[in-house]
Amino acid sequence: MSKITFLGGGSFGSALSVLLAKKGNVITLWDRKKSVIDDINNNRSNNKYLKDVRFPENVFATEDITLALKDSEFVILAVPSHAIREISKVIKPYISKEAIVISIAKGIEEGSYKRLSQVIEEELENPIVVFSGPSHAEEVSLDIPTTVVVSSKDMDKAKVVQELFFTQSLRVYTNDDLIGVEIGGAVKNIIALAAGISDGIGYGDNAKAALMTRGMNEIIKVGECLGGKKETFFGLTGMGDLIVTCTSFHSRNRRAGILIGEGKTMDEAIEGVGMVVEGIKSCKAFYELKEKLNVSMPITDTLYKVLFQNKDPKKGVKELMQRDKKSEIY
Amino acid sequence: MSKITFLGGGSFGSALSVLLAKKGNVITLWDRKKSVIDDINNNRSNNKYLKDVRFPENVFATEDITLALKDSEFVILAVPSHAIREISKVIKPYISKEAIVISIAKGIEEGSYKRLSQVIEEELENPIVVFSGPSHAEEVSLDIPTTVVVSSKDMDKAKVVQELFFTQSLRVYTNDDLIGVEIGGAVKNIIALAAGISDGIGYGDNAKAALMTRGMNEIIKVGECLGGKKETFFGLTGMGDLIVTCTSFHSRNRRAGILIGEGKTMDEAIEGVGMVVEGIKSCKAFYELKEKLNVSMPITDTLYKVLFQNKDPKKGVKELMQRDKKSEIY
Repeated sequence: MSKITFLGGGSFGSALSVLLAKKGNVITLWDRKKSVIDDINNNRSNNKYLKDVRFPENVFATEDITLALKDSEFVILAVPSHAIREISKVIKPYISKEAIVISIAKGIEEGSYKRLSQVIEEELENPIVVFSGPSHAEEVSLDIPTTVVVSSKDMDKAKVVQELFFTQSLRVYTNDDLIGVEIGGAVKNIIALAAGISDGIGYGDNAKAALMTRGMNEIIKVGECLGGKKETFFGLTGMGDLIVTCTSFHSRNRRAGILIGEGKTMDEAIEGVGMVVEGIKSCKAFYELKEKLNVSMPITDTLYKVLFQNKDPKKGVKELMQRDKKSEIY
Repeated sequence: MSKITFLGGGSFGSALSVLLAKKGNVITLWDRKKSVIDDINNNRSNNKYLKDVRFPENVFATEDITLALKDSEFVILAVPSHAIREISKVIKPYISKEAIVISIAKGIEEGSYKRLSQVIEEELENPIVVFSGPSHAEEVSLDIPTTVVVSSKDMDKAKVVQELFFTQSLRVYTNDDLIGVEIGGAVKNIIALAAGISDGIGYGDNAKAALMTRGMNEIIKVGECLGGKKETFFGLTGMGDLIVTCTSFHSRNRRAGILIGEGKTMDEAIEGVGMVVEGIKSCKAFYELKEKLNVSMPITDTLYKVLFQNKDPKKGVKELMQRDKKSEIY
């Protein structure tokens, strides 16, 4: 039994808090929104972010971050990627030095292009473990079989986190390629947005599979350039997460893409999804980063133009499908 | 304008015949079933295998194989994999020596474990081109964007076939790794059956994505052992075709798997799908072949036991999900 703190009561944080509570741990969940806190504490539910899930009594929600962090052995950063640096700064005075910080967000920092574990490392002296893989919150919370990966600079700490989350339905693997795990998780959201646009336009499964295949190669190219291993990109946090994000209705990135493919603007799509769409920020970051790295990322490039430069999405996807290559070389 | 013969009036052969007819070629389509012939010639439709598609007037269907092959420059073998050797023998006396034979079936020969182009090569002296990739017939026939790959021992002939099929909506790439193209296309049907079972049991997108990721590694392991290139398996005929077959409702392999996951027997599933389920034969062939090659193929192994040894599908998929590995190594 451990004392565990979740910072952020979104869908994935909520799902994992319920899972760890069922394992008998003492959970404190911090969130800024009073409505979320009240819903969990009073109704044992979080209907805004994760419908039909009952929170056990050993999940206590609070707006008081000092209280939330008190004596915590594990601190899960369950906020969107753009809030990771800020939350790390905020918790610094209150977090125990021995607590393991677990990062579940996916993205890279705007401007600095740093991986989220690098951002956390700059702000906190705690051991950091990254948690990633094909794991929609809705299914995790219902105990539907799911496999995920944990990675860290300190693999002994990763193994501790593996044991923490491991259940009959949630299989947790370790992978020591921290860079690959983080980059794969960030870039797949870009491809999922593009795949959603293809769906929204009314293109079929053939087109989307082709786009995902090309997308996989885009992940590998930029990922290897940043120091990740090819094998990682073919594993759960690369290909596995790419597949689930591009094909599942649960994916908010895909849903945002569908809305854009149907003719909505980026802002309308964000509003329609009602939650943070990480792929949009990742697209901007990797669009800039690829120029610096001199890596070709045609899907990211096209998506950026659709999102930020009013390019017609149908024309964009069509151009991607019709790039004038004759030989299948990646 | 070319004279082109399709041997077999199934869904994929029909879709490609309509596509080539629209490009202005003269098409003869041979099939054993009089009902199919009559439907095409009299109603310009093939409702048994490909609904809602109108055959242009320049598709002529016939039961007379001699007539069908007369003066043909391209002969497309559009029969199931188990009929490839027989049809090759049958056409030998009538096919022009210069005609390019195009193989669109996916599988390996039972007993000999030969790739289909090897089987054809043993029976005919013609140049052979393999056509593969993520391309459900239903979408090809509706001109929804699709990308495919052609491969051959003689890449000049592959380029001729590339030009033959190339349209604004069907993008055809070349790949000189003939072994990889054929093996990827065969093994992905096994994984699609397993993915369908996972769906049929009621598991979610997380589980299926994990299964597909492991399946991809199964394709690579056996494919490399047989002489295929890793890059090919990550391309359209490997990963691309795997994705479309595992996620699309059009996939008959996936549909058969869903029925089995829901509790039907293999024979009931075949009857329910109403068309040849190549994955079942491929599963048997690769189950035997992996023993000879000493390659580990856990999904193929489990599926074989479900299909042929009455193993409970739910237990099988559960075991696959829970294999006692702790580190993500492939």
